Amino acid sequence: MSRVIKLAVIPGDGIGPEVVGEAEKVLDAVTAASDVTFDKARFSLGAARYLETGDTLTDDDLAAIATQDAILLGAVGGVPGDPRLKDANIERGLLLKLRFSLDHYVNLRPSKLYPGAPGPLAEPGEIDFVVVREGTEGPYVGNGGSIRTGTAHEVANETSVNTAFGIERVVRYAFEVAQKRRKKVTLVHKTNVLVHAGGMWKRIVDAVASEHPDVTVDYVHIDAATIYLVTNPGRFDVIVTDNLFGDILTDLAGAVTGGIGLAASGNINPDGAFPSMFEPVHGSAPDIAGQQKADPTAAILSVALMLDHLGLSGEAARVTRAVEEDIAHRGSTPRTTAQVGDAIAAAVQA
Amino acid sequence: MSRVIKLAVIPGDGIGPEVVGEAEKVLDAVTAASDVTFDKARFSLGAARYLETGDTLTDDDLAAIATQDAILLGAVGGVPGDPRLKDANIERGLLLKLRFSLDHYVNLRPSKLYPGAPGPLAEPGEIDFVVVREGTEGPYVGNGGSIRTGTAHEVANETSVNTAFGIERVVRYAFEVAQKRRKKVTLVHKTNVLVHAGGMWKRIVDAVASEHPDVTVDYVHIDAATIYLVTNPGRFDVIVTDNLFGDILTDLAGAVTGGIGLAASGNINPDGAFPSMFEPVHGSAPDIAGQQKADPTAAILSVALMLDHLGLSGEAARVTRAVEEDIAHRGSTPRTTAQVGDAIAAAVQA
Ligand SMILES: CC(C)[C@H](C(=O)O)[C@@H](O)C(=O)O
Ligand SMILES: CC(C)[C@H](C(=O)O)[C@@H](O)C(=O)O
Repeated sequence: MSRVIKLAVIPGDGIGPEVVGEAEKVLDAVTAASDVTFDKARFSLGAARYLETGDTLTDDDLAAIATQDAILLGAVGGVPGDPRLKDANIERGLLLKLRFSLDHYVNLRPSKLYPGAPGPLAEPGEIDFVVVREGTEGPYVGNGGSIRTGTAHEVANETSVNTAFGIERVVRYAFEVAQKRRKKVTLVHKTNVLVHAGGMWKRIVDAVASEHPDVTVDYVHIDAATIYLVTNPGRFDVIVTDNLFGDILTDLAGAVTGGIGLAASGNINPDGAFPSMFEPVHGSAPDIAGQQKADPTAAILSVALMLDHLGLSGEAARVTRAVEEDIAHRGSTPRTTAQVGDAIAAAVQA
Repeated sequence: MSRVIKLAVIPGDGIGPEVVGEAEKVLDAVTAASDVTFDKARFSLGAARYLETGDTLTDDDLAAIATQDAILLGAVGGVPGDPRLKDANIERGLLLKLRFSLDHYVNLRPSKLYPGAPGPLAEPGEIDFVVVREGTEGPYVGNGGSIRTGTAHEVANETSVNTAFGIERVVRYAFEVAQKRRKKVTLVHKTNVLVHAGGMWKRIVDAVASEHPDVTVDYVHIDAATIYLVTNPGRFDVIVTDNLFGDILTDLAGAVTGGIGLAASGNINPDGAFPSMFEPVHGSAPDIAGQQKADPTAAILSVALMLDHLGLSGEAARVTRAVEEDIAHRGSTPRTTAQVGDAIAAAVQA
């Protein structure tokens, strides 16, 4: 009854390969004694590949990735300002292209303040919420353009596209997540300014809410939501929001829960038509790449999200527990990327 | 040689009238012995007026306001969810209409952590920056719409409109502000996703920067900017950004510097073609209205911004100093709105 899971591994750029290396170490450790095998296919994608071949994501790459069962991604993106990358947009052409092509309509980003994690807030209280960020619409669709570009008369537009279809499915997902948690959903948007998109979000949340009478629902403007994240983060359980607001909120959420080095995410296609993709929220941080300074915890927690998504909840729980223990006992002595990975890998096997 | 300044006063809704009352008290106090007189015209605008008359902002109101030299606004907006306001959009129809009609292209929002102000950060360090938020373009233009509204096939678009003309003037303003401060300008945007609008912002900032070789310039994505605001706010001097990102950042900035009860703003038309408008960043907070619980400090600091804008820098400095002293000596004993206003009004006369 052994199960083979086809895993695409995309280490990427900067600290990506380092943190993915540790994430794989932990994955290997937690599956060592089980009847599940991850059959890995490695994809060399990112700024480095672009500089070598000029490719960002070829149709062949995409087709090969689409046949996998899941994707583990480190981080992509070159050195900011690198003139050779002037005409590349690794983020749009690779990361967002994967999310859109593989219909990752749920971008799941849990935020938890683990005991021992040093955060910037004086009185953080308990922080434990999940952001369900829409992943395939909104201001991210790339429907923009400019005229008279580079002149004093340039006009550049960016259009946020939002559909009832796209919103309803992610809102339903958010309510399902809330049902398994503290049963509270907060919609974050800017309905007083973006009246059309915001109005539709609000109407759909209200409609889905009526099917979940046991879930408490409220609404907070994006600007006010950032205030709550630093003054009263405990008020949130499940936040559902659009692609851009979710991007902003989850970085801030990472910061208040001890840093972006701990923030994991899943780009999920709940229908299972395409493989879901798991990645740390942080970027490629080329300034510290190759120095064993990066914290692999976010990548390792992304493995936990992946295991959970694949139905391996026991394995997921073991990884999360090992990470929690590791964070609780982190002193102030810095450890290398590999040392953190080794410690967590050892703990999952203990 | 006496100078008469025509001032439109818009107390608005909720706590608006209370905080504006204290702001006027301080304004009267600081001008009592000077040869400047503020000739006030009061405008009853906001949710209350809408409920009474059905008007949000009539052409006559707007024309009358446009002839004033400056505007002091409290806050507008009714009780959230009030069914009678279902079809009103006080924010778009009044507040944003004023900002757009009066060409308030600079939304100036200083953030300073005053000694004694209790903020949420464990180690805030020194916080003293100014956000120069664009006020007349971007996602706020109201160029949105929806089709098949209310059905399962609804599509709602919102278009962000950005012009070289609009960006250049606000960027120039930001560099002028930086020249009088620590000479650093940070552009905040999301150039990797909103490539057309973001690309234009970047190019214009770079062009204006070349005329200011003594100003340090850098760029931060909006998501990363929220991280810095809680982990290293001291890195910012002048932030220039678009209408929506500025909205988000300044609420967060208010929170990290001791609360939105201290955050002042100016909606400025630097050309002087239209009166500029000064208002606290906070909203109408109907839940605590009429209870003398609101902190009038943000409204009073908005008066200081107004005085400065009107060339009355001595008076502005007296108000700011009085506020600083008041904040430094605030204990934990709560004071009424009027008590705070009285104390600051007395201090500016001392
Ligand atoms: C790299 C960038 C395109 C991406 C995003 O904006 O979604 C990142 O910030 C994230 O949150 O995963
Ligand atoms: C009330 C709302 C329209 C307004 C804005 O978004 O600009 C407010 O949040 C502000 O920041 O002044």
